[in-house]
Amino acid sequence: MPFKLTILGSSSALPTSERFPSAHVLNAHERLFLIDCGEGTQMQLRRNRIRFGKINHIFISHLHGDHVFGLYGLLSSFSLMGREATLHLYAPENYGDLLHSHLSDFDIHLNFDIDFIPLSGKDPVCILDDTYLSVTSFLLEHRVPAYGFLFREKPHDRNIIKEAIEKYNIPTVRMQAIKKGEDFVAEDGRVIKNEDITIPGPAPHSYAYCSDTRYFARLARFVSDVELLYHEATFDSSLSDLALKTGHSTTSDAARVAKEARVKALVIGHFSSRYKDITSLVEEARTIFPRTFPAIDGRDYDIASIDEW
Amino acid sequence: MPFKLTILGSSSALPTSERFPSAHVLNAHERLFLIDCGEGTQMQLRRNRIRFGKINHIFISHLHGDHVFGLYGLLSSFSLMGREATLHLYAPENYGDLLHSHLSDFDIHLNFDIDFIPLSGKDPVCILDDTYLSVTSFLLEHRVPAYGFLFREKPHDRNIIKEAIEKYNIPTVRMQAIKKGEDFVAEDGRVIKNEDITIPGPAPHSYAYCSDTRYFARLARFVSDVELLYHEATFDSSLSDLALKTGHSTTSDAARVAKEARVKALVIGHFSSRYKDITSLVEEARTIFPRTFPAIDGRDYDIASIDEW
Repeated sequence: MPFKLTILGSSSALPTSERFPSAHVLNAHERLFLIDCGEGTQMQLRRNRIRFGKINHIFISHLHGDHVFGLYGLLSSFSLMGREATLHLYAPENYGDLLHSHLSDFDIHLNFDIDFIPLSGKDPVCILDDTYLSVTSFLLEHRVPAYGFLFREKPHDRNIIKEAIEKYNIPTVRMQAIKKGEDFVAEDGRVIKNEDITIPGPAPHSYAYCSDTRYFARLARFVSDVELLYHEATFDSSLSDLALKTGHSTTSDAARVAKEARVKALVIGHFSSRYKDITSLVEEARTIFPRTFPAIDGRDYDIASIDEW
Repeated sequence: MPFKLTILGSSSALPTSERFPSAHVLNAHERLFLIDCGEGTQMQLRRNRIRFGKINHIFISHLHGDHVFGLYGLLSSFSLMGREATLHLYAPENYGDLLHSHLSDFDIHLNFDIDFIPLSGKDPVCILDDTYLSVTSFLLEHRVPAYGFLFREKPHDRNIIKEAIEKYNIPTVRMQAIKKGEDFVAEDGRVIKNEDITIPGPAPHSYAYCSDTRYFARLARFVSDVELLYHEATFDSSLSDLALKTGHSTTSDAARVAKEARVKALVIGHFSSRYKDITSLVEEARTIFPRTFPAIDGRDYDIASIDEW
């Protein structure tokens, strides 16, 4: 099953001709999770042939325009396209009232419901939990309340060893329970231990999104051991004072979080428009965390094959 | 001096991979007038290498998202780029309060002033008048208050006939007045009539923007004899009932206005996303008004050479 990130926008507040504002799509088992929704997100979805109808969850990290100005157009388009399914919208708590007043200001009448899940508090909170996935939000450090998101697949079932099926004559009806970890009682009453007839399933995939934030030590704990970490890196290391002042991170800050959290790979983005070429930003991060990659609009990052990047 | 339209967006409410929502830029004497500001306008400005700093007047026809959702991002970008010049913003009167509350909701602090000019009433009103240009707004017929805009160059100065300068020994200091229409008093006291020493200057250029609106007979009078008329044509002629119901026009409606107003050329746009190919829409309009052209994102329409289209 796919577990893949597509980046739709990698600019910071000022978009460029190459970079749209922040928007990520995580494809987890063919369900699409939209993370931030900067201006032009709906055009980028179309350009990347991503089906609107598969998006049922939208996560807004914070209420700065470059992370949310595409939302009204997208909601309006959902409605015009005949959407009826409830949309689950996760955003800072004060957005609940604002959203409805903005929709009314612009004469937008949605023919579907919005299930608003307010983000609040400082500590990690589980905001979505279903059969396949859990999502945790956690407070970042920015000029306004901003939240990061951690997506973790649920542990996969164990795989039954093919030879064991024949050897112990395991009937199909028992397989589901064995995959979940139960032992098998053979026809002659013998108990066959689960670990003798199964091997662990594939490791669960995971993705964390951290934007916008300045560096703080606790963040690495929130995202520890995640496979792919996206972390904003608005500035190069020489602008650490500006980063601190504006509530942003440098390349070194992002790489430091990745290293401390022992992630498999780091993608940096949210680049200031002052950098026409971002090669040096990636190189700078790699001196601290070698497996750093740049966010590029329209590029897929296949987390299922992250070891091969 | 240039008098040229650039279309940045030609879709209706639902943008496509080819068409962004409504936004036009009129370049009149190297001053840029932005007319409507749908989502993604700032990206389209960059893509078309149009300089943000030359935009001092923005006209918003009405408060539907596909005409205004790009404004917040653009204002924010103006500010981030260091703009200090006052921006003149023309929009339906109820937008004055909304704008400031929206900017505050999204933590946008502009470092320039907005001079808000409210649009109201039913009859044509002059909303801008300077040395080179006048702009008139007029009420359209849509689901919410929507305004059209008519841009007219001021009459050009007359041109002095080269031979007359030598013949009557006209000094440079008198030329400006003669160009404005004054007679010339020669050294010997003879009065030389203006029409004997000048020819008319080039005809003033003009452009009218009509979106969104259903057909109404009075509209042609508002835009009579304009050189270029942009008129929305959301639907083909077979969908006239839907057009009426939604407050939009068909190809035939647009062509009819162009014909009744005796314009030189008609550009149709604001196409419904149902039309993948708009050739048939243009052909349909041409049966009524032959000089009809389609709005295409990124295309320039040089009104100064409209007779040669």
